[in-house]
Amino acid sequence: MIKVVKIGGNVVDDQQALESFCKDFAALEGPKVLVHGGGAVANHIQKALGQEPIKIAGRRVTDAETLKVVTMVYSGLCNKSIAALLQKDGCNAIGLSGCDGNVICAKKRAPLMIDGEPVDFGFVGDVTESSVNADFLKSLIAQGITPVLCAINHDGEGNLLNTNADTIASSVAIALGAELIYCFEKDGVLMDKDDNSSIIPTITYDSYIELKAKGIIADGMIPKLDNAFKAMSKGAGNVTIKNASNLLNETGTTLCR
Amino acid sequence: MIKVVKIGGNVVDDQQALESFCKDFAALEGPKVLVHGGGAVANHIQKALGQEPIKIAGRRVTDAETLKVVTMVYSGLCNKSIAALLQKDGCNAIGLSGCDGNVICAKKRAPLMIDGEPVDFGFVGDVTESSVNADFLKSLIAQGITPVLCAINHDGEGNLLNTNADTIASSVAIALGAELIYCFEKDGVLMDKDDNSSIIPTITYDSYIELKAKGIIADGMIPKLDNAFKAMSKGAGNVTIKNASNLLNETGTTLCR
Repeated sequence: MIKVVKIGGNVVDDQQALESFCKDFAALEGPKVLVHGGGAVANHIQKALGQEPIKIAGRRVTDAETLKVVTMVYSGLCNKSIAALLQKDGCNAIGLSGCDGNVICAKKRAPLMIDGEPVDFGFVGDVTESSVNADFLKSLIAQGITPVLCAINHDGEGNLLNTNADTIASSVAIALGAELIYCFEKDGVLMDKDDNSSIIPTITYDSYIELKAKGIIADGMIPKLDNAFKAMSKGAGNVTIKNASNLLNETGTTLCR
Repeated sequence: MIKVVKIGGNVVDDQQALESFCKDFAALEGPKVLVHGGGAVANHIQKALGQEPIKIAGRRVTDAETLKVVTMVYSGLCNKSIAALLQKDGCNAIGLSGCDGNVICAKKRAPLMIDGEPVDFGFVGDVTESSVNADFLKSLIAQGITPVLCAINHDGEGNLLNTNADTIASSVAIALGAELIYCFEKDGVLMDKDDNSSIIPTITYDSYIELKAKGIIADGMIPKLDNAFKAMSKGAGNVTIKNASNLLNETGTTLCR
């Protein structure tokens, strides 16, 4: 079974962690796809350019200038740094944005109602499993090539769109019927978010609802788990949530049906 | 015969010219590869970041900070904007840097002696036809996919390197035994560089040497023609030098053996 691994922006922003992760990912057996973020790096570059990152409800608002920055950072700096590291580690990686080989075609997000007000997130795209060109990904994988996807996609009308990387990972996992491994800076889903040893080893959908109601699962973890359970219900394999440094061992939280 | 088309940074920096060029390139019949620059866009971004582009003997010195910028601009902003436009125009483009599928593996340039002094150009790579993964390019082309190459390559050791895009174009043309079309902002090689109507329709190698001795061919045109004649001698097809806006018509300068 193909494995889809997602790493977040904090790993990508830490050169030592990234190099170590790439070594592990290259050693991961079997066919695989990597999806990466880059938000922390984009924040640095935006600030260096005198732009102030704007977020509403935890999501980046992507105006024309922000789109330029995230395209430069995600498709350029992050995607190519990762591909070059993987090549060094013996993994024949190919860095792709959605426009490349039309691998992911996204739909521009209509303004969302937040607190009763319409919010236009700008050049932001939504993807689902039907946005994914699974045939092209499978043909690359069949040639021994490992796709490395970033969060920049296109709309087929010549525009680039910024897309949530977690959603890309889950959409790709559904489209490929693949296992999904979300890597981030903590060791799994935690009972106490400040205690990295309080990993919850398994979570069912019912226990997720309960943990969410109690406020134990909150903030950025909610869209991550929503995506994960949705992916499992639509044909993705097991979903694991773990620290990027534990890719090759069993530590982490496994989601069960 | 495959056609390798190169466009320079001035075309890439002009949105209207770029859109028009992409429409023409998409309409160009037969198998093809696009190689693009992006130096003018990189200059804007370097300035916005408070960096001063450094050039010695017409070549950009690429320190670590400059490498970040050119990677962002060439591999990210320019490469993905072009791929998205081509997708809109019905051309199934795939934007690639050298690390992607190991398509071009460059060699870091050793310090060069200039005016008796060693000059270290930094993270700059040199490529030849043997740096090009012709099999991978051919397999993409056989699938109806059009490779779009930028000037960022890797060294196989995890490092990205900035490379001259004209040299990439000629190396790819040699490796694929392809025709080579250099597009830039003038209508061809000119007798009078300020008169766009003074196109020299054909140039042999002997006449090139003569025109160079007279100072009619000078500056940035010299490495372009050196590359072109070298490519022809090593197995590339015809080489044409023309305005990017004339891609689909016969205007321009053709180099003859």
